[in-house]
Amino acid sequence: MPDRIDSPKNPRLKAMLRLRNNRDRKKTGLILIDGVREVSRALAAGVELQEAFACLDWCDDDEARDGLSALRAAGHGVTELSPTAAEALAYGERRSGIIASARRPQRSLGELSLGAAPFVAILEAIEKPGNLGAMLRTADAAGVDAVVLMDSACDPFGPNVIRASVGNIFRSFVAEATAEKTMAWLNENQMQVVISTPIADKAYDEINWRVPTAVVLGSEAHGVSSQWQGQSLASERVRLPMHGQADSLNVSTTAAVLFYEAVRQRRAASKQA
Amino acid sequence: MPDRIDSPKNPRLKAMLRLRNNRDRKKTGLILIDGVREVSRALAAGVELQEAFACLDWCDDDEARDGLSALRAAGHGVTELSPTAAEALAYGERRSGIIASARRPQRSLGELSLGAAPFVAILEAIEKPGNLGAMLRTADAAGVDAVVLMDSACDPFGPNVIRASVGNIFRSFVAEATAEKTMAWLNENQMQVVISTPIADKAYDEINWRVPTAVVLGSEAHGVSSQWQGQSLASERVRLPMHGQADSLNVSTTAAVLFYEAVRQRRAASKQA
Repeated sequence: MPDRIDSPKNPRLKAMLRLRNNRDRKKTGLILIDGVREVSRALAAGVELQEAFACLDWCDDDEARDGLSALRAAGHGVTELSPTAAEALAYGERRSGIIASARRPQRSLGELSLGAAPFVAILEAIEKPGNLGAMLRTADAAGVDAVVLMDSACDPFGPNVIRASVGNIFRSFVAEATAEKTMAWLNENQMQVVISTPIADKAYDEINWRVPTAVVLGSEAHGVSSQWQGQSLASERVRLPMHGQADSLNVSTTAAVLFYEAVRQRRAASKQA
Repeated sequence: MPDRIDSPKNPRLKAMLRLRNNRDRKKTGLILIDGVREVSRALAAGVELQEAFACLDWCDDDEARDGLSALRAAGHGVTELSPTAAEALAYGERRSGIIASARRPQRSLGELSLGAAPFVAILEAIEKPGNLGAMLRTADAAGVDAVVLMDSACDPFGPNVIRASVGNIFRSFVAEATAEKTMAWLNENQMQVVISTPIADKAYDEINWRVPTAVVLGSEAHGVSSQWQGQSLASERVRLPMHGQADSLNVSTTAAVLFYEAVRQRRAASKQA
């Protein structure tokens, strides 16, 4: 008889639901992964899944069917949910055909693999899960080599970051670190450090992004922290030109423009070579 | 005796609150503007305010006090709200010291003013208010000359667009138009039309953005519509290079990279000149 949950009051289902709260994630060391693509990305990235639920009525496209096959091929038992039970797990209007719990991934700086002229993003104390997720998604698209989450002000493995990053938070190019460790690591790897700040003298397109570079983006409210001041490694400060009513841009918008300027300069250089 | 509302059940307050619904905005031809910066931007842009409320307890910074002064200097009566009444108007956790209703602005293509080599953004059938707002904010920062909202799939004057655009929806650089009128206008103004689509052959940095240019960004679900196919004016198609797990980017992220590429090329050209 297949494993199946019909009641929204089932204790395993309720334990899963509690993982929407940061407190319960901290207490258990588990996280909640919500969505076909997100679970598939986590699986592909080697995240250690604990329990996987699927509502077959909601797994009605190829992506969902492939996701289920991948779970089973990896030897995971998949507990079936009735639509009523699945509704109880759903977040807002979002219907996720697959939902799983997993051990919270821990990845340190030493596990990152860097190429010859790496381009790295340091995201410092980002507060909004939507911004953190968006930056991870853009970092993936732009081919950033590594993303370091320094002093995070929101849980990088909370459901909102997982969703906004479309599962890219699980990619092996992400590490979490303290400020001290991050700075030591940047020193070791002899990277140019570029601080993004609206008060910089230089525009972002006036520096050379082709050398090994780490770009630092700071929190929504306070920008890049004063920890970086007087650091010998903070070699450049750049801003985006502002032609409008003097607003600064959202940090994830700024990140996209900076990441793609590095891509552009590197593509241009490789064409000339 | 100053005009003041204490009760959350006050009928004027309730009429204001109903403007959060698209249906009521359509019926009355009014919109709701929520927030100090947003009301100030609307006022500066010449939007015809109907009624303005302020909760003085929540107007506790310079920006709010300046906003109040500007309202009064413009001859608007400001009705005071008790904190209890203001709570009833508040959206989620956001506390807006100033909130106003206004006639829905109507701006057509003929009212746009274009410079010598204009750079224009055409936003087609955007569905998510957050994306539309973010693109308006970035368009302002990048110095885009005009933004045309074509076949909008969300209300551009809904509270979420107003908020996400930080009031830039009220700037005189925005117009609303049908596809037919937009295309006729582009023809008249002899602009290069650049379609943003992931299936383009050219990368976005391989074309000349310095000539008069309109860039077209399409809906989240469907991209740029087939209306543009076979148009003699659709002269270029571009994509962003994707180096990651084959995701496309969010439309507002794509817009930021494209807008700033135009800025970059134009800045570089003006330095050489």
